[in-house]
Amino acid sequence: MKIALLGTGAGARAHVAKLLALGHQVTVGTRDPEVTLARTEPDMMGTPPFSTFLAKHPELTLATFADAAAAGELVINGIDGINAVRALSAIPAEALAGKVLMDYAVPYIYQQPDEVEHPWPTPWGVMPRMSPVDTDSLAEQIQRAVPDAKVVKACVTQEQETVVNPNEIGGGDHTIFIAGNHADAKQTVADLLNAYGWRDILDLGELPAARGLEMYAHFHAAVHTALGGERFGVKIVRK
Amino acid sequence: MKIALLGTGAGARAHVAKLLALGHQVTVGTRDPEVTLARTEPDMMGTPPFSTFLAKHPELTLATFADAAAAGELVINGIDGINAVRALSAIPAEALAGKVLMDYAVPYIYQQPDEVEHPWPTPWGVMPRMSPVDTDSLAEQIQRAVPDAKVVKACVTQEQETVVNPNEIGGGDHTIFIAGNHADAKQTVADLLNAYGWRDILDLGELPAARGLEMYAHFHAAVHTALGGERFGVKIVRK
Repeated sequence: MKIALLGTGAGARAHVAKLLALGHQVTVGTRDPEVTLARTEPDMMGTPPFSTFLAKHPELTLATFADAAAAGELVINGIDGINAVRALSAIPAEALAGKVLMDYAVPYIYQQPDEVEHPWPTPWGVMPRMSPVDTDSLAEQIQRAVPDAKVVKACVTQEQETVVNPNEIGGGDHTIFIAGNHADAKQTVADLLNAYGWRDILDLGELPAARGLEMYAHFHAAVHTALGGERFGVKIVRK
Repeated sequence: MKIALLGTGAGARAHVAKLLALGHQVTVGTRDPEVTLARTEPDMMGTPPFSTFLAKHPELTLATFADAAAAGELVINGIDGINAVRALSAIPAEALAGKVLMDYAVPYIYQQPDEVEHPWPTPWGVMPRMSPVDTDSLAEQIQRAVPDAKVVKACVTQEQETVVNPNEIGGGDHTIFIAGNHADAKQTVADLLNAYGWRDILDLGELPAARGLEMYAHFHAAVHTALGGERFGVKIVRK
């Protein structure tokens, strides 16, 4: 399958490496490929420059967001939450029309430590604010921005390294969640998650359920911190 | 132990029945005991009038919020999130000073259906807004309102019927979370949860983690709806 991964961060790379291992043809989208390739230092999260990753995966194509989206049958949004709507809105409508757009971004607004009234240690040093929150979600904003795509919120309740290798945690006995307004698109995403190794995929219904999935991020960060920074899974335990 | 339960709803009653079964001496607090006892109809959630519950538990004492708090060594807040800060602030400081105040309230702002832009079916019919959210929590508001009490956020990630009987779900193999600024108070709450039957109690650290616990409510509602209204547990699956 031809898959476009928009974004070059650690989460995006986890998906890309797995998708290539599964035999898919992957195009990675970035704002400006030349700028991305020119970077030689790790980013603020400690992620090595993309050129290092590309050197390990020469079969990969790096393109603009628009060209990558046009090349994909399935498009995965791994653009930072704060930039996602603007970047996706700038893609020509025909590049996304009718396509599944899986979105795993968290709508964090990064803050400087001295802007935070109530600091709370997280992997990022302080607790970032979220926007939108509660009465709207990033996934719904994206669906409104690209109405001809079929947005599915997924993979937002754990690190992407866990998403692509669920069996690394508790033998894979945990749960992943999807939400969206298009049943066929949710089936496509569920098939991908099955290929990643997921056995318990819970459909939360229409896209407003993404509010719950995105707001879960603060809970996730708190648990992650309590476990000393270890990755973990969350299992829905039925009666 | 002398325990005060502030609130008369279904969640409060679940705690009261369990605490009585465990041999504790329980005082239930309400705004106006006469008004509470005069009700003869179920409330908007379908909960029977409190007098019905009291008839089954004649060893129970019903009192004002202030008198109940004064009578308790441990105080549990089961007042609706929207009313909790006002009601707790009105209690004389000496009635709560130095005491553990366990808070399980969700800061829902109930809305009328026609006020909701993006309806999302929940057990309440529509998705309620939350306030505070993201940059503050109800638990922190309560701690600021009653600074001499030791607030512990707990029991907010599932129905209170599940909190008091964890073994009803998956043999009890799921997780409950606590957060607060006072280690001794968290130990008291953990002891209570152990008595309820919990084996996996995860301490999320200081009280700002309550933001994550409270914001988890929309995720919980979405899963609850997806499971057809069944109660469920959530298990943190470690590596």
